[in-house]
Amino acid sequence: MQKFTIGIDIGGTNTAFGIVNRQGTILYNHSIPTQRHEKVEDFITELCLEITAGLNTITEEFELIGIGIGAPNANYLNGTIENAANLRWKGKIELSKMVNKHFNVPIFVTNDANAAAIGEKIYGGAKNMNDFIVITLGTGLGSGIVSHGKLLYGHDGFAGELGHTIVEANGRACGCGRYGCLETYVSATGLVRSVAEQISQNIAPSIFRDIPFNKITSKDLAIAAANGDEIAKNALKKTGRILGEAIANMIAITSPEAIFLFGGLTKAGKILLDEVTYHMDKNILFIYKNKVKLLLSQLPDDAAILGASALVWTEFE
Amino acid sequence: MQKFTIGIDIGGTNTAFGIVNRQGTILYNHSIPTQRHEKVEDFITELCLEITAGLNTITEEFELIGIGIGAPNANYLNGTIENAANLRWKGKIELSKMVNKHFNVPIFVTNDANAAAIGEKIYGGAKNMNDFIVITLGTGLGSGIVSHGKLLYGHDGFAGELGHTIVEANGRACGCGRYGCLETYVSATGLVRSVAEQISQNIAPSIFRDIPFNKITSKDLAIAAANGDEIAKNALKKTGRILGEAIANMIAITSPEAIFLFGGLTKAGKILLDEVTYHMDKNILFIYKNKVKLLLSQLPDDAAILGASALVWTEFE
Repeated sequence: MQKFTIGIDIGGTNTAFGIVNRQGTILYNHSIPTQRHEKVEDFITELCLEITAGLNTITEEFELIGIGIGAPNANYLNGTIENAANLRWKGKIELSKMVNKHFNVPIFVTNDANAAAIGEKIYGGAKNMNDFIVITLGTGLGSGIVSHGKLLYGHDGFAGELGHTIVEANGRACGCGRYGCLETYVSATGLVRSVAEQISQNIAPSIFRDIPFNKITSKDLAIAAANGDEIAKNALKKTGRILGEAIANMIAITSPEAIFLFGGLTKAGKILLDEVTYHMDKNILFIYKNKVKLLLSQLPDDAAILGASALVWTEFE
Repeated sequence: MQKFTIGIDIGGTNTAFGIVNRQGTILYNHSIPTQRHEKVEDFITELCLEITAGLNTITEEFELIGIGIGAPNANYLNGTIENAANLRWKGKIELSKMVNKHFNVPIFVTNDANAAAIGEKIYGGAKNMNDFIVITLGTGLGSGIVSHGKLLYGHDGFAGELGHTIVEANGRACGCGRYGCLETYVSATGLVRSVAEQISQNIAPSIFRDIPFNKITSKDLAIAAANGDEIAKNALKKTGRILGEAIANMIAITSPEAIFLFGGLTKAGKILLDEVTYHMDKNILFIYKNKVKLLLSQLPDDAAILGASALVWTEFE
């Protein structure tokens, strides 16, 4: 009998789920808006009805061995979402318990970056690794640290907030209320802030003088930089330098076999990645030199669903 | 029958060892000079003869269950010392294999900071903790990170080099060949460098204008600061601020239950520790606020021997 897991990715706008086999094939997937319901219970009910409908499309005999959920501010140890800024339901949401009312299988909950890390281990480039880090580069910067083959959760389940290490005292204001957090420099948003900084300081011509900040994408910047746009090049280089320096420090702390980069910002291409590599190598302590691989995530586009589903396999293996 | 372990602490000057029971009582201890012999094999032979002599003084029946060794640049995974700057024997020393020729028991090797962390767990203040960090503040700065109850060794056995994270780009020159490493600011040596910096910048009177830098101790500075010496106070405050900031970042990465401070620099007293606490609290991400304890090590003075011996107990428990 085939074994399946379900991976759910709860995002600020949409919630996607998939029925996934051990090889990482998604047999069925679907998504619903996240924030249509005032009560979180009603959202969970709708989601679980959709999952049941999905399961009913499977014609072969199967066993559902568990459900993995990736969500913002999710806590693995408690099975909860706690104070997520981009969800309408405030306080502590008992996610695991609520889903369990609909499906009597083990439920595992974690944040997006941890899910990406476990996805990389189960289906991606980290299959044979026990010590590695996945850095997710989207609107913000997240990290999932795997040590001795297990996610590093820390005492309260919230380890891995690399994006909120302070890399510049009194630096850029961060959504967390502090200043100089890594993600204010290294993320899709941070990159665009560096474009603004360049425009404030540099007189070079640039197409980004004519595009609203909120419309600038990492891919636009990669293309412009490849065409010689100095503003774009400098912004990408600054982002790459700060990420390379942060990676060198993370290596000194955790000594991983590899660092995987994941998410939208990796689309910013060769200029960014070359700079990351250069500054990682320049700043790495000699004992780690030429030991640590810097890699792009090998998860496909449905990574969030896969990562969440991987949580379940990893618990049983 | 009583079970004993042996803890060995290999230092640049002396090598101390002790016969230790599960409660952390040292039944016999002795030390020999580390660097008397040109060949490392001869040093090991002398050490093992002394250990045998020690074991012969025990009159009750006992079982020696293993030997733990703390040493600079020691590698747990390989049982080796690799390129230790302050030992006369260069390259890779097969420590574990050499000691095994004399004692047919399991041998475990790790660096001083990791040994301190395991010592804290077995005999000290971390007995009931599974996620914590010990920061050793001596001539340099070391760290031992315990996650899920186990030391975080990383892929190559050399994780935990918090002292070699770069906290100031183009900062103070470090013995590792780079600039701005945490230990160039936060260590007994770093503190004295901050005294020199103060003397270069500040015109306040100070007794430290009349003491050679190499003679200034952390304790001297604590006493002078308590008596109002501005140079001493500012140097201690800078050290405390940078350590507090580094701890806040380490919390975001590993989310420990507690941080233990260990070693000579903790003798620098209240001004330093208050400053560490203040800047840790000021820089901590809100989700960790009031969750993480900052504690002084509860290991006694023989901590290095105890930490090494604790390595053995932890392997069997």
